[in-house]
Amino acid sequence: MTAPVVVLAPDSFKGSLDAPAVCAALAAGLRRVWPDAVPRHCPMADGGEGTLDAVLAAAAGAGVRRQRVVRGASGQPVAAGYGVLGTGHDAVAVIEVAQVVAITDPVAMQAGVRDRDTRGIGELLRQLLDEGLRRFMIGLGGSSTNDGGAGLLAALGLDLFDAQRRPVAASPAGLAALAAVDAGRLDPRLAQSSITLMSDVNNPLCGALGATAVFGPQKGVTAAEVAMLDAILGRFAALTEEALGVSAATRPGAGAAGGLGFALQLIGGTFRSGAAVVADLNGLDRALAGADWVLTGEGRSDAQTLLAKAPFVVAQRARAAGVPATLVSGAVDPAALTALGAHFAGAFALAPGPITLADCIARTDALLADRAAELARLFAAIRRSP
Amino acid sequence: MTAPVVVLAPDSFKGSLDAPAVCAALAAGLRRVWPDAVPRHCPMADGGEGTLDAVLAAAAGAGVRRQRVVRGASGQPVAAGYGVLGTGHDAVAVIEVAQVVAITDPVAMQAGVRDRDTRGIGELLRQLLDEGLRRFMIGLGGSSTNDGGAGLLAALGLDLFDAQRRPVAASPAGLAALAAVDAGRLDPRLAQSSITLMSDVNNPLCGALGATAVFGPQKGVTAAEVAMLDAILGRFAALTEEALGVSAATRPGAGAAGGLGFALQLIGGTFRSGAAVVADLNGLDRALAGADWVLTGEGRSDAQTLLAKAPFVVAQRARAAGVPATLVSGAVDPAALTALGAHFAGAFALAPGPITLADCIARTDALLADRAAELARLFAAIRRSP
Repeated sequence: MTAPVVVLAPDSFKGSLDAPAVCAALAAGLRRVWPDAVPRHCPMADGGEGTLDAVLAAAAGAGVRRQRVVRGASGQPVAAGYGVLGTGHDAVAVIEVAQVVAITDPVAMQAGVRDRDTRGIGELLRQLLDEGLRRFMIGLGGSSTNDGGAGLLAALGLDLFDAQRRPVAASPAGLAALAAVDAGRLDPRLAQSSITLMSDVNNPLCGALGATAVFGPQKGVTAAEVAMLDAILGRFAALTEEALGVSAATRPGAGAAGGLGFALQLIGGTFRSGAAVVADLNGLDRALAGADWVLTGEGRSDAQTLLAKAPFVVAQRARAAGVPATLVSGAVDPAALTALGAHFAGAFALAPGPITLADCIARTDALLADRAAELARLFAAIRRSP
Repeated sequence: MTAPVVVLAPDSFKGSLDAPAVCAALAAGLRRVWPDAVPRHCPMADGGEGTLDAVLAAAAGAGVRRQRVVRGASGQPVAAGYGVLGTGHDAVAVIEVAQVVAITDPVAMQAGVRDRDTRGIGELLRQLLDEGLRRFMIGLGGSSTNDGGAGLLAALGLDLFDAQRRPVAASPAGLAALAAVDAGRLDPRLAQSSITLMSDVNNPLCGALGATAVFGPQKGVTAAEVAMLDAILGRFAALTEEALGVSAATRPGAGAAGGLGFALQLIGGTFRSGAAVVADLNGLDRALAGADWVLTGEGRSDAQTLLAKAPFVVAQRARAAGVPATLVSGAVDPAALTALGAHFAGAFALAPGPITLADCIARTDALLADRAAELARLFAAIRRSP
């Protein structure tokens, strides 16, 4: 049997391997069974951590990685990576909010959630506007903030006042006293810009499905604080929507990145599934054309995978192309297998038997190669048998 | 796609599920994907624990399970199950040594290995001879003894003496003083009997690959005792071989069950691969004819699987029938994947992610069904795709 054409389109395995490394491990496994295999590598991302790497990998020579120092979520200096695709008027800046306000940043996490904000992302955007850039793609996953994007808007010129017309901080703590906003100094270059939001969640800003109620707890919001912080974001939204004459709080994705999805849509950004954007950039559809099989995966698959996670977007594109998509993840929730089974031609975990999480993470690349090889042996035998 | 014909031929998962239960769990998983699937159940065994169950399951209505009380390895009474297939002159008794001298018997294990012997198996054989039975199949795995089968032979009439012509015990401790044997009283009905040994090991009785050196340590033989106990078995073998005019100590399988394989071959028994015997009994070859796929497995697969373990025998029969055989085991040693890959169309473990051994054992049936279902989804997608 000649080697089948296999597309490799995994997300990163968080805490272990980035998506290009996952592709490489899967390819190594396939080569054990098909030495002449030439897999098509399409590393995926969904707007969260790893999106910048995946986009730059997809752009190959047409993208560069740069870095600027801006303020992190608690005001500390952070060296934030970003990307630039193309040149001149068509150049697109790729920003990953996790590069600035990552929930994995131990310094920022020393501050409470009320004192963390997204000013640094606004600063980065302003510096890139200064450079002449007008097209932006912003990946929204992995933030530590829950400020409704107030920090971003303040850094871009929005003025925030209390009832005595005194400036207030653009953090949840400051917004508690918010009584008025003034958009008169908002950066006019935003109106000439195109902003694409990339996210894997489509929650609204407020309410039971909002940023604070759903994502607040993992950022340190206590059960007792949810209602108050949700109300603070609600009032902030009402005032800014009125000032700009735009409604955005109930749009899908307004609740992404602690409400940064709201602020970016307020200033003209367009919300998209992060994985769909990455799939468009990395040529997934072209790779699927004429392919025999696609392997996708992520650190852990469960019912959430079937929202807008990368493997689900890959499965949808694969179905449209008539190519079976198999899921290979670090772990697969048994309770989700029936639901996953409607989309994937088999869902498989990496564990070779009883194993600890730490051991599984440490050996991810070897286990990925093993799993790909064993699946390939089955694939080959079934193709061969009458 | 109509449901493919799938043969289910797993060994038991030791400490968790017997082979018929493994078949049932795999079948439940296949039905999720192919509701009209009618898998062919061929529960396997290799001569060790579970062999009696597998043989009785294969015999369906033509076999009965019975029980007799005999002496266990340390002399304690043991209720030993055995089977009888067929009736009259053709009746075959199926004995599993683990029913009498199991290494999992906590009472027997309180005695040291020098004081454990196989008298109970000889007693059982004698009682069945009294019943008129003359055909025996004896599964040799899972014993706690290392007596060279001296206990069995003593129970069948072999007399053992020290240098002063005093009787010695038929245990390693007694054999240490052995100076002469007398086979004059050996049960004459053995000469009219047919005995088939079933084992998954083909070690000789003595030496570096012998019973004591290879299997002694797991029975409590210390490194310092190996040479002495090996020499005791060697002298016992030399004296009995001379007395009976038969050579058996170097035959394949003489070292099975602590040397019981030697004693049974000495009295005319024929050594066979246990899994091959079970495959003949359960109609594996008939089931494979026209089948599309076979699933096999065991508690843990590693390089040893490729000796005479049940999944390997299944893979060989499947290859001869042109049917792909996939391995689904509780754990699969990553170091053995390349070797296993030459025989199996994929080797897969049960773990859905990081998991403890205890959890994996407690959930074996659910995990087996899940794994079978996911493999079936892949199988179906590959069959369906062009």
